[in-house]
Amino acid sequence: MSSFFVILSRPSSPENIGLVARGMKNTGFNELRLILGTPIDPNSYITAVHAEEILDNSGVYPDISTAVADMDVVFAATARHRKNYTSLSLKQAVRKMLKFSPESRIGILFGNERTGLTSEELYHSNFLFAIPQETSQPSYNLASAVLITLFSIYSTAGANKMQAAQKKPLPRWEQEECIRLILQKLEEKKFINPGNNAHVTGMVHDLFGRMAITAKDRDLLLAIFSKGPDRNGSSQ
Amino acid sequence: MSSFFVILSRPSSPENIGLVARGMKNTGFNELRLILGTPIDPNSYITAVHAEEILDNSGVYPDISTAVADMDVVFAATARHRKNYTSLSLKQAVRKMLKFSPESRIGILFGNERTGLTSEELYHSNFLFAIPQETSQPSYNLASAVLITLFSIYSTAGANKMQAAQKKPLPRWEQEECIRLILQKLEEKKFINPGNNAHVTGMVHDLFGRMAITAKDRDLLLAIFSKGPDRNGSSQ
Repeated sequence: MSSFFVILSRPSSPENIGLVARGMKNTGFNELRLILGTPIDPNSYITAVHAEEILDNSGVYPDISTAVADMDVVFAATARHRKNYTSLSLKQAVRKMLKFSPESRIGILFGNERTGLTSEELYHSNFLFAIPQETSQPSYNLASAVLITLFSIYSTAGANKMQAAQKKPLPRWEQEECIRLILQKLEEKKFINPGNNAHVTGMVHDLFGRMAITAKDRDLLLAIFSKGPDRNGSSQ
Repeated sequence: MSSFFVILSRPSSPENIGLVARGMKNTGFNELRLILGTPIDPNSYITAVHAEEILDNSGVYPDISTAVADMDVVFAATARHRKNYTSLSLKQAVRKMLKFSPESRIGILFGNERTGLTSEELYHSNFLFAIPQETSQPSYNLASAVLITLFSIYSTAGANKMQAAQKKPLPRWEQEECIRLILQKLEEKKFINPGNNAHVTGMVHDLFGRMAITAKDRDLLLAIFSKGPDRNGSSQ
């Protein structure tokens, strides 16, 4: 099975961090990353019953970009529908996760308890998924959302025991570099302009994020997108 | 679907009671019964975000016998194997629950955080079930165990009806039309030439095929790919 990394962005409750660690231990996951401006609050240990070593070994990162740089693919949990983005159901997301080749490093990203994930955080993700719920309010508690997700992976993986391996995507930072270059080309072409920037940038991230770009994909995409402007550039 | 009743026996943490209510609301369950010697601790309301009415309407019972008297069948959650008892997996239990006729009243019983269920409590149950877990310690937090159970019922029941509303890709012929237009643009740009035609055509089909292009994707892609050549075309 691939390596899974639970990534919590700006969690505000130390108690939730501990509960997440406990849920990870229950379901057999070890790698926890926290995007925090400070070290872990010692109060997190109160709820991390028998899962203290997951907190001990967790990584604290200053921002989303460094937290996902060495991931191959990132799945982001969102409670509500996000304009411009395709959202998978939890079941679809888990199925997709389990198709990546065993050496893949898969990040599962959860936002802050109150605000969820920002657009900036979504730009660093390949796929969005939502956990089905019956009512629009309340959303799942943060630790609950993590637990349901991990339990689904754990029980589905146990049920399937691996399917055919999908090609390994580029490390996340290289995917982002590729998308950045595409966006740059689109700006040069004036396809992106100040009036539509946020909108189109979101759509482009959604479209190319879903590809989980491999090395071969990148070569092709950059070749395709370089072609036009180069000709324009040389035709002056 | 049958009526489900979540029954907590002697829960010691008010916070867990509130979290259980929130998880019930998330997954569409309403009926909560508490076996307690006292009224609900008001602190339970702190964690019952947007699910206060479940606490308001919950029933408090002095003992297990009165709490289950009007149930048709009772499923009891246990973390560990119990001598003399057959234990179902969660999946088996959920399947069994969903097979009862719609007018059935099904109790799902959870024991105290520290001690679990007593033998006396098991005497009042029809079936025992255990939630799979990777390690023997820690066991699931009480609210987590309830949530995983309810989410399994909710998603299994839902899976039979609704399939996740994934964005529908275009009919296959329209996807192909879109790819054909992209290829045409790439030929106009001389990105595709007689020397690399078969190779690049294959790669482009692979790349855009994997997207399972939706109507929205097509609009974006064609806009992106039209931009360059249109400018070239009009600049003669």
